Amino acid sequence: MSSVSIPPPACLLRPLEVPLRHLFGPGPSNVPPRILAAGSRPIIGHLHPEMYEIMNDIKRGIQYAFQTENNTTISVSGSGHAAMECAVFNTVEPGESVLIAINGIWGERVAEIAERMGANVHRLVKAPGGYFTNKEIEQAIVKHKPVLLFLTHGESSAGLCHPVDGIGDICRKHNCLFLVDTVASLGAAPIFMDKQNIDILYTGSQKALNAPPGTAPISFNDRACHKMFNRKTKPASYFLDMTHLSNYWGCDGKPAREYHHTGPVSGFFALRESLAILAEKGLEESWKKHKEVAAYLYRGLEDLGLKLFIPERDLRLPSVTTIAIPSGYDWRELLAYILKHHHMEMTGGLGPSMGMVMRIGLMGYNCEKNNADMALHALADALKNCKRSKA
Amino acid sequence: MSSVSIPPPACLLRPLEVPLRHLFGPGPSNVPPRILAAGSRPIIGHLHPEMYEIMNDIKRGIQYAFQTENNTTISVSGSGHAAMECAVFNTVEPGESVLIAINGIWGERVAEIAERMGANVHRLVKAPGGYFTNKEIEQAIVKHKPVLLFLTHGESSAGLCHPVDGIGDICRKHNCLFLVDTVASLGAAPIFMDKQNIDILYTGSQKALNAPPGTAPISFNDRACHKMFNRKTKPASYFLDMTHLSNYWGCDGKPAREYHHTGPVSGFFALRESLAILAEKGLEESWKKHKEVAAYLYRGLEDLGLKLFIPERDLRLPSVTTIAIPSGYDWRELLAYILKHHHMEMTGGLGPSMGMVMRIGLMGYNCEKNNADMALHALADALKNCKRSKA
Repeated sequence: MSSVSIPPPACLLRPLEVPLRHLFGPGPSNVPPRILAAGSRPIIGHLHPEMYEIMNDIKRGIQYAFQTENNTTISVSGSGHAAMECAVFNTVEPGESVLIAINGIWGERVAEIAERMGANVHRLVKAPGGYFTNKEIEQAIVKHKPVLLFLTHGESSAGLCHPVDGIGDICRKHNCLFLVDTVASLGAAPIFMDKQNIDILYTGSQKALNAPPGTAPISFNDRACHKMFNRKTKPASYFLDMTHLSNYWGCDGKPAREYHHTGPVSGFFALRESLAILAEKGLEESWKKHKEVAAYLYRGLEDLGLKLFIPERDLRLPSVTTIAIPSGYDWRELLAYILKHHHMEMTGGLGPSMGMVMRIGLMGYNCEKNNADMALHALADALKNCKRSKA
Repeated sequence: MSSVSIPPPACLLRPLEVPLRHLFGPGPSNVPPRILAAGSRPIIGHLHPEMYEIMNDIKRGIQYAFQTENNTTISVSGSGHAAMECAVFNTVEPGESVLIAINGIWGERVAEIAERMGANVHRLVKAPGGYFTNKEIEQAIVKHKPVLLFLTHGESSAGLCHPVDGIGDICRKHNCLFLVDTVASLGAAPIFMDKQNIDILYTGSQKALNAPPGTAPISFNDRACHKMFNRKTKPASYFLDMTHLSNYWGCDGKPAREYHHTGPVSGFFALRESLAILAEKGLEESWKKHKEVAAYLYRGLEDLGLKLFIPERDLRLPSVTTIAIPSGYDWRELLAYILKHHHMEMTGGLGPSMGMVMRIGLMGYNCEKNNADMALHALADALKNCKRSKA
């Protein structure tokens, strides 16, 4: 038998240090004490009857948040990217055609995921902040005959909330599944999975829901289930296979739930609490609050002489506001100043919007006028104290 | 604009209820208050400098726990199954030959995962509780010429701790990577990644490390990195692609870490704390404690007239003890009695060991003689009060 030759690292003998910070970027958002407390409850087993009850509650909460009656409604044990892969891996088979609407980073990511699993990927591209008309979408569907259309509802990299009405009907007409990403928009902007004929919808836990990152609600309607449960090949991932996940979540009608993977028990406690808060508050109230606080923020930003990146007010994402980088400033310097002097996170762009925007997120728990005031004060201070390279 | 038609679910208006329970099954294990507290700290962003420091600490802690100097050492943002997929997806390409040692459920799972991603899977199978000689392994490697051999160190479904010495050398001789699963054994039984020439090693957070489930440490040595970073095809999963994950964890030498996915911030806080506890206590002490408490448990079980499932004492997994189902009893009835009357989880078998064993796990924080006493008392009570079907 060998002996230990690598000593305990000194860095771990120091206590964990975590600064307090205003998370006013595009997520994760600050987690309210009530959700932190739920997540720190002593755990139980992932297959205990009480855990199944908690998972049932989560399922009902997601159905409410998504406005769906879909039975196949679960939380993926991972971040939004895991839900993205779960959606694509399960509903698409290698060689099938998919159409990805790209107007920011999220479409790019889904295209990458679909290519890896062997789909025939067609891209419909606009610059960040751009959006697609229903006519453009229908033309592309007719041309490429995809089995799946992907669209981002809450395009947080550009601050755009994409219209959804009518697209689900177009997809049905052309026998295509409609997959929508609401990671950044759920709870902040209205979405009606059933009424809008969305076939697959997912979100993340760490945005307007205010839970820690690590769980990702997803729902599949009957059309999506019909396709994914009648496929010829197995999905590339066992971990994300909906045949197993729908059993673990009690969606498949079988009498017993079988062991598939160990779900993030604490993460599910926190997710349940976040959905409970949304149920108590009500979706309409949450949507209204995000719209009001965003409008208040827009006025304040314009009073500072800043320009909103999305000109059409109705297309702005209420949870994440994008501003054009003020002329002459280095956006990295502004953000670093705000972080250092105001203990506040705002961020730059992401993917194709990098260098084009700065982003302020006021989501869920953080969505309050006094937080908007703090953000505006910090921005004003940064604009005053950071140097301008040119007039 | 539509209106809300699905009302808030009444079940979410009730507070979260979680019973207190002794988690003396094969995991998750009870989480000590210190780790629960770390996991409930207010969060920061997944790309903040302080988060990178915490991730660096985690990396150092995993290096210690694995006894490795591998630079490519990270935590996967998911359960043990995500780490399993991460290992196989990154180091194997479609069409390549892999050899999976199966003596319980974990090998079965890896074979399933490897088949899905298109590998040419060869199975080396023993009944639960069986183990492989180095000669058997070498013969199979010579026959199938695999690029990867998978072996479970802590076979928790059967309670076996598989010998590892010498197998890494055989793999090197035949140009094969050696992948070892230590989900159930890490911190409980000695493993020396570098000295034992293990090329890829992973574990889970929720066993002897006592963190909540949802993070999974994994390490790749230079041989593994050489193969996975010189592959011709991209791994099936973007979420688990080590090109991106090694950048996010600061392992690739690049000056900047780029956004890949949102890591489970609270889960990382908890994982850091669990590794800190292991560093404070020391690996040798943790191994010794598990061995002593297990030996104490064995005596108590034998005093109750129970038969240990693994006859060879040296091959027993110290963290999870398996007992043969006592003759004439219904194991489900015994477990239900213990859960109901003693608020204690023990479990039956899993996969191929189902119906063959009952399992008692005393891991990390739970690994104390007084807990063994409680488990023995509960078992004795169940044996007395549950009916025997036959003499």
